[in-house]
Amino acid sequence: MEYCFGVDIGGTTVKMGLFSGEGELLEKWEIPTKKGTDSKPLLKAVGEEMEKCLSRKGIKKEEIAGVGMAAPGPVNEEGLLRGAVNIGWGDVFLGREAEKIMEIFPVFIGNDASFAALGEFTFGAGKDVSSLIMITLGTGVGGGVVLNGQVLMGKTGTAGEIGHTTINPFETLTCNCGKKGCLEQYASATGMVRMAEKFLQESNKPSPLRQLDKITAKDLWEQAKKGDELALDITKYVSHLLGMAIANACYIVDPEMVVIGGGVSQAGQFLLKMIQEAYAQHVFPHCRDKKFALAKLHNDAGIYGAAAMVFEKK
Amino acid sequence: MEYCFGVDIGGTTVKMGLFSGEGELLEKWEIPTKKGTDSKPLLKAVGEEMEKCLSRKGIKKEEIAGVGMAAPGPVNEEGLLRGAVNIGWGDVFLGREAEKIMEIFPVFIGNDASFAALGEFTFGAGKDVSSLIMITLGTGVGGGVVLNGQVLMGKTGTAGEIGHTTINPFETLTCNCGKKGCLEQYASATGMVRMAEKFLQESNKPSPLRQLDKITAKDLWEQAKKGDELALDITKYVSHLLGMAIANACYIVDPEMVVIGGGVSQAGQFLLKMIQEAYAQHVFPHCRDKKFALAKLHNDAGIYGAAAMVFEKK
Repeated sequence: MEYCFGVDIGGTTVKMGLFSGEGELLEKWEIPTKKGTDSKPLLKAVGEEMEKCLSRKGIKKEEIAGVGMAAPGPVNEEGLLRGAVNIGWGDVFLGREAEKIMEIFPVFIGNDASFAALGEFTFGAGKDVSSLIMITLGTGVGGGVVLNGQVLMGKTGTAGEIGHTTINPFETLTCNCGKKGCLEQYASATGMVRMAEKFLQESNKPSPLRQLDKITAKDLWEQAKKGDELALDITKYVSHLLGMAIANACYIVDPEMVVIGGGVSQAGQFLLKMIQEAYAQHVFPHCRDKKFALAKLHNDAGIYGAAAMVFEKK
Repeated sequence: MEYCFGVDIGGTTVKMGLFSGEGELLEKWEIPTKKGTDSKPLLKAVGEEMEKCLSRKGIKKEEIAGVGMAAPGPVNEEGLLRGAVNIGWGDVFLGREAEKIMEIFPVFIGNDASFAALGEFTFGAGKDVSSLIMITLGTGVGGGVVLNGQVLMGKTGTAGEIGHTTINPFETLTCNCGKKGCLEQYASATGMVRMAEKFLQESNKPSPLRQLDKITAKDLWEQAKKGDELALDITKYVSHLLGMAIANACYIVDPEMVVIGGGVSQAGQFLLKMIQEAYAQHVFPHCRDKKFALAKLHNDAGIYGAAAMVFEKK
């Protein structure tokens, strides 16, 4: 029996998991992310954590089939991570560097949102479908595409970047990415709060949201669920834009399922239904009944997907 | 040595080609499309044409490896053509029906724009790349996606339908598809003429376009090439929307190449450069240098792609 490690490098923590050959998560833990321009200290720390784990478990290094490593940036076809701004890294062949430092082979790297989609596909919400797109509604809007069982990275590493598709060509505010009118400007947790503040200012409707010092996306969805009219206006508007962006993506790859994940997806079936209804308004009748599901693996999707990548490539 | 037939069913004519096992087009011809609600008369006529071709060439039916057949409508994963409005057909398993009527096996069917993309990928503009999306600017806007050497049909048959991605959420006019704000409403030949008429009405700029009784997309691009300021305003606007829609599609699948085809693409490198510049404004810096190319196979792309499908599946 073989094992593998799934690693998910985030801006704050590095999540790590040891998986059995059957894809069972045997142990998971996390360490703080070492930031800076050099990726070596972080990789060294990850390697040491793996060594400790192996000795704890009495597993030999030769029994490790490989390591999957999710990185917070675009990874191109050649395995080049095109920078990870949240950590401070520039362009780096992270997989090769990790193999050298950690002395475990092979190391497969990929974009974190793409690996999360692969995780949901292999072990989570999408384990019974043949293709999916996943949209992650968090601080930003991430995405991943899995077709015919394979995660799509893309030539330059931007496959699945639905958060930066333009949905409002008339937007005047600039997105973090430098463009204007990206989905992320409206449908990330931050974007939803921005929309809420805009609606509150432009409307006279009463709302419990007006009593809050600082609105969060969670407050917004909670009030909408309770039937607050203004909160419903806002969530419907945001869902409309999400439905449109998802429809546009489905008109390119037409997957069997759409998975919604990220912190905002804790609003559950209420949010899912609203997005699905908006989606149906933006597509031909014969593709209106697409499967929609909530993500199941939550914060572990990245390590599951990283592990799935090792099994897929073996 | 084996042969195959490539068939491209259009609203006016059915194009047919006999191909060698090496993918060489040995003979091509066309017959008028038999319209109506029943697909059998058309398939019978196509079958008879094949028989005649085989006897002309002295080829036995057993030497035919298969038939690829492009249809003007969405084809889902199960091979169900979800209607072909231009001909009058409803839902039909066209491949199975064709096999029964024509007695040639197997028959692979697919959407015409998707097969055209596969044709360009295998024999045309994209023969040296690993993935592409193709956008066809004709009466409508069609599209196809080829990833890792395989044409993407999609679960419900709408993969590649870039013409019906929403690019203007504030449009009030309805597209032929029933939605509002589709790319096709601006960037098809018809859409470009509509935009030209709008700009002529809303602007006071002089332009040779004002002397024409009826403007065509060809006139528009010809005047733009000659440096007419108003024609340039219009072509830049339309290219901007095309660049945006292509950027959105590339953010989902991130292919190696974008191929522009269809009647409007006869405007050549001038049009290609304008679209490419607009694309670059809508993407991250590291994916700005994507390959853009004009389609090479023109009206034969469908039959080439249909033939490629047979070779791919054998």
